[in-house]
Amino acid sequence: MSTLRGVGVSPGRAAGPVVLVHDRLPEPALGPEPADPAAEAERIRPAAQEVAAELQDRAARASGDARAVLEVTAAMATDPSLLAAAEQAVRDRRLPAPRAVFEAAAQFAEALAAAGGYLAERVRDVEDVRDRIVARLSGVAVAGVPATSTPSVLVSRDLAPADTADLDPEMVLALVTEEGGPTSHTAILARSLGIPAVVAARGALTTGAAGARVDGAAGTVELVAEPLTPEAAARAENRWHGSGTTSDGHRVKLLANVGSPAEAGAALDAGAEGSGLFRTEFCFLDATSEPTEARQREAYAAVLRPFAGKPVVVRTLDAGADKPLPFLDVDAEPNPALGVRGLRVAFDRPDLLDRQLAAIVAAAEDTGAEVSVMAPMVATPDEAAWFAERARAAGAARVGVMVETPAAALCAGEILSEVDFASIGTNDLAQYTCAADRMIGALAALNDPWQPALLRLIAMLGEASGAQDKPVGVCGEAASDPLLAGVLAGLGVSSLSMTAAALPSVGTSLAEHPLKTWRRAAEEAASAPDADQARLRARAILEDAEPSATQADRGNR
Amino acid sequence: MSTLRGVGVSPGRAAGPVVLVHDRLPEPALGPEPADPAAEAERIRPAAQEVAAELQDRAARASGDARAVLEVTAAMATDPSLLAAAEQAVRDRRLPAPRAVFEAAAQFAEALAAAGGYLAERVRDVEDVRDRIVARLSGVAVAGVPATSTPSVLVSRDLAPADTADLDPEMVLALVTEEGGPTSHTAILARSLGIPAVVAARGALTTGAAGARVDGAAGTVELVAEPLTPEAAARAENRWHGSGTTSDGHRVKLLANVGSPAEAGAALDAGAEGSGLFRTEFCFLDATSEPTEARQREAYAAVLRPFAGKPVVVRTLDAGADKPLPFLDVDAEPNPALGVRGLRVAFDRPDLLDRQLAAIVAAAEDTGAEVSVMAPMVATPDEAAWFAERARAAGAARVGVMVETPAAALCAGEILSEVDFASIGTNDLAQYTCAADRMIGALAALNDPWQPALLRLIAMLGEASGAQDKPVGVCGEAASDPLLAGVLAGLGVSSLSMTAAALPSVGTSLAEHPLKTWRRAAEEAASAPDADQARLRARAILEDAEPSATQADRGNR
Repeated sequence: MSTLRGVGVSPGRAAGPVVLVHDRLPEPALGPEPADPAAEAERIRPAAQEVAAELQDRAARASGDARAVLEVTAAMATDPSLLAAAEQAVRDRRLPAPRAVFEAAAQFAEALAAAGGYLAERVRDVEDVRDRIVARLSGVAVAGVPATSTPSVLVSRDLAPADTADLDPEMVLALVTEEGGPTSHTAILARSLGIPAVVAARGALTTGAAGARVDGAAGTVELVAEPLTPEAAARAENRWHGSGTTSDGHRVKLLANVGSPAEAGAALDAGAEGSGLFRTEFCFLDATSEPTEARQREAYAAVLRPFAGKPVVVRTLDAGADKPLPFLDVDAEPNPALGVRGLRVAFDRPDLLDRQLAAIVAAAEDTGAEVSVMAPMVATPDEAAWFAERARAAGAARVGVMVETPAAALCAGEILSEVDFASIGTNDLAQYTCAADRMIGALAALNDPWQPALLRLIAMLGEASGAQDKPVGVCGEAASDPLLAGVLAGLGVSSLSMTAAALPSVGTSLAEHPLKTWRRAAEEAASAPDADQARLRARAILEDAEPSATQADRGNR
Repeated sequence: MSTLRGVGVSPGRAAGPVVLVHDRLPEPALGPEPADPAAEAERIRPAAQEVAAELQDRAARASGDARAVLEVTAAMATDPSLLAAAEQAVRDRRLPAPRAVFEAAAQFAEALAAAGGYLAERVRDVEDVRDRIVARLSGVAVAGVPATSTPSVLVSRDLAPADTADLDPEMVLALVTEEGGPTSHTAILARSLGIPAVVAARGALTTGAAGARVDGAAGTVELVAEPLTPEAAARAENRWHGSGTTSDGHRVKLLANVGSPAEAGAALDAGAEGSGLFRTEFCFLDATSEPTEARQREAYAAVLRPFAGKPVVVRTLDAGADKPLPFLDVDAEPNPALGVRGLRVAFDRPDLLDRQLAAIVAAAEDTGAEVSVMAPMVATPDEAAWFAERARAAGAARVGVMVETPAAALCAGEILSEVDFASIGTNDLAQYTCAADRMIGALAALNDPWQPALLRLIAMLGEASGAQDKPVGVCGEAASDPLLAGVLAGLGVSSLSMTAAALPSVGTSLAEHPLKTWRRAAEEAASAPDADQARLRARAILEDAEPSATQADRGNR
C-alpha cells in the first residue's frame, strides 16, 4: 500500500499483522444532568481508587523506570485536588461524573503544560489516568493496548507509560508511533526490550493497513493490505556477564541512571556496574522549602547504600525555568530550555549548592559508595572551574560536569582541564545542536542521536579525553541504543549510563566487535551526511568487517 | 568605590561624571476618582497624539534602524485598541486618566510578552510609550535621558529605543546598563556610534557614584565618589571610503541589513556595498492572510530598486513559533526559539515558500538588483538541499542558507556542497551554542559574540568556505563590532552585513591591519578560554604586531 518514513529509534526488522492501539475515549457528554448530584459525586472516588490499585498492582510487577513511572501515575489517580475539583463540578454544575473528571483533568493538564519542561511531560500521564477513571465510570473498556494472541506490530499515536509497562514483549514484534521522538517512552521501551521501533511515522494510524514490515534501523514502515505472518528478526543472544567490554577486552563501564532508592535496587538487579547519573531532584520535588542538609544526606544515602564499593556519579540539582520547583521561585521565561536552569540557578544561590555538596559528601562517607559529583548545564570553562572549586572545597573526591551545550563540547579541552571527568547528556546536547525542542514531534528527526553533528561534538570530547587521560561518559538515551553504544565507545567514550533494562542488549552488542571495528564504525557514522546514513554506514562496517564474527565468537565460548 | 564586571559590547575607554537615566515613573495612583469621567477620558487621545507627534518628529531626524524603530513606537502611541481600553477604564471604572493608560498598557504588554519572540521584544517600547503619555497627562517631565551640558557616562537599567535615538553622541562618553545583552538596543547603538559600552553591569544604578571609568573591551566599570573630568579615548578617524578592505587590499564586502524601503535608502546613504540580509517579514507582519505573489513582488521591488546593480541577499520568511504571524496559525510551543520556525514552517507549507521565491525572482528582474536568496534556520544538509532545489526551480540565480544552528556549522562542508553560499546569523548561533536565551539579561555573558565556542564554529565555516571556494558571510550583530569584524575576516568570512550606522567604524577598523594580522588575532581569539580573554588577546596581537601601523599608514595616505 505505502511506505512511511519515520525515525528509527530501535534497530531490527520485523513483519506481521497490525494492531492499532486506540488512543482516547470520545469526550464524555455534558449531560444528562444527574438526578442525585451528591450520589453521582460519590461514584468518583471509588473509581479513582480502583484505577490507582490497578496501576499499583502493575507497578509491583514492573521494575526500574517502568515501576517508578507507574507509581507516580497511580498516585496521580487519587490526587486530592483532582478528585475534589471533579466532585465539585458534579455538585455545583450538575455534570455527569465522567464529564466532571474529564474537565478537572483538563485543568490539571493545562497547569502542567503551562509549567513547561519536566511537568509538561507529565500531561500524557494525566490523560492516561483520566481515561482510565472515565472508562470505569462509564462502564466501557479502557483504551490502550488490546490483548492479542498473535505477535503483532503495534501502531499508536504515542504510547502512554502505563501502556508501555503493560505490553507483553512476546506479543510485540515492533512498535510504530505517529508522534514521539528518540527520547519518548516508546523509544526507550523498545530499545530496552530489543524490539524494532519507528517513531514520528506520520499517517501510520489512518492507512487501514492490515500488515506492516518495520525496519527500525532505516526508520521505514511498509504498510500492506494483508495481515502478514509474524516474522521477527532473531533477537541477540544475551552474552553479557555484568561487565562491559568490547570483544577484544576494551573496558566500557555499563552503568544505570537512577533517581530513587527503588531504581538503585533495580539497577543492581539488572547488573549495572554502578550509576553514571544519579538525579537528585527526587529529594526536592515535593518540597515547599529547601530540604535540610541532614534530610538530603539521608535521602542520598538511601540511594547510595546499595552501591557500596561501586562508582556513582551524583548530579547536583537540575531545576530552574525548565523544571520549576516550588521553593526555587524562578521567573517564568519565554524559552525555559534556554533559560536559567541547572548550574545557572546556583550562581545566584551558591549556598544552596554548598549545602547539597556537603550532604552528598557526607552520604558518600555514610555508605561507602565511590561517589563523584557533577554539575548540570555547564557552558564554559569558567563555569566548570567555579563548580569544581566549590565541590572540592566541600570535600568531593572526583568532580565533573555534564556536557549538554554545544559550547561545552567545542571547549572540551579547556573544560576537562578544570575537572576530573565529563559526562555527555545527549538528549539536551542534541536539542541544542539542532536547535530543536525534543518535546516537539515534528522535530523528532533533528533529535535523532545519530545526527552527524552530534557525533562530531562527541568525537571532540573523545579526543580531549584521550589527550588528557580523563574519562568522558554518556548518560543520555543514546547510550541505550545497542548499536550506537558501540559507536560511542569508538568515539572515545569510556562509560555508558542508561535505563537499567537496556543493559543486557547494550552489553551483548558491545561484546560483538573489537574496539578497532567500533572505531571504524564511529568514523563512518560521524562523517555521514545525515542520521540515516550514519546508522547504515556504521551497520555496514560491522557487517562487512567481520561477517562471521558473531558465529565464530559463539563457537569459542 | 567599586569595580563592576559586566559584558563589554563596544570597545574603548572613557571616564567622566555619571548621569543616571531614570527608568520609569512611579505607578500612577488609583485615585482620586475623576469628577467628570467623560471629560477625563477625553484628555487621553490628545496626550497620546502629542507623544506620537513628538516621536514622529524624532523619527524624521533619525535614519536607518533608529528611524524605523521610532516610527513603530509612534504608531504604538496612538494604537486604537490601547486608547479605547484606557478610555473605557476611565468611564467604566472611574480611574484617573494616567492610571487608566497605565493599566491598558500593562494588558497590551502582557499580551505581547505571552506571544513571545519578536513581539515580546516590543514590551519595552510599549512601556516607553506608556510612560510618555502618563508623564504628559500628569504634567511631569518624561523619564529618560536628561539633557546634559557636560560629556558624561550614562548609567541606566537598559535604554529604550526612543532614548537611544535621542542621545547627543557628543555628550555621551560611554554607556553602562544593568540589564541587556550584546544584542540589546544599547549595545547596537554604542557600536554604531563608536562609544564604549558595558551591559549587564549589575548594581551600577545603586552605588551612588559620581564618576565612572569604563572599559568597553574588558567589560569593567570602575565607580568612584568624585565626578571625574570627561576623558574619552580618541575615536578612530573615519578612513572608510565605501569599499571594505584590509590594509593589504583583501576584500571583505561591507553590507547593511535592511527590512523596509526606508532602510534600503539609509543603507545606501551610509555607503553600504549592498545588503547581506534583506528581511522579508515586513511584507507579512500586518497581513491576516498570505499576501498575493503580485503584492509580494511589488513590496520586495520597493526595497530592491535602490540596490540596482548591487548584491542583495533576500532571506525567505523567518516566522513561526518564535515570531507568530496571524495568517500562519502555528501552535504555541514550550520553547518557541527551539520550535517550528524559519524554514521549518515551509516543510508543511511548501507552496507558501514557492510563491515567495517566485515573487523574489520576479522582483529581482524588475529592479536589476543582484539578488541571492537564502533560507533561515537550516540545521542539516538535507534541509539545505531541499531549499536549494525549490529555489533553483523558481529561477533563483544564487542560493544560500543561514547558519544559525550549531549543527549547520558542524556540517559546514556538506551544507556548502548543496548551496552557493552561507551566511552566519551570529545572534541565534550564539544563543544555541551556549543554550542561553538572548532575551534574558542574566545570560548576557553567554551570548557574547566573542565566546570562543562561537568563534570555533565560525572557523569551521571559514575553512569549508576556503576549501570549496564558496563565500560565507556574517549578518548578525557580531559584524558591527569593529574589532570583531576584522577577526571574522581573519576566520575566513568574506562579507559582513550590519546596521548601516556601524559601516564607517567597521570599515575604518578593517583597513587598519593586513589580513595576516587579522588571521593571527582570529587564531588567538578562537583559542582563548573565555570571551574576555578572546577580546584581550585579539587586541594584544593588533597592538603588538604593528605598534605604529596606524601612524605609518596615516603618513602614507
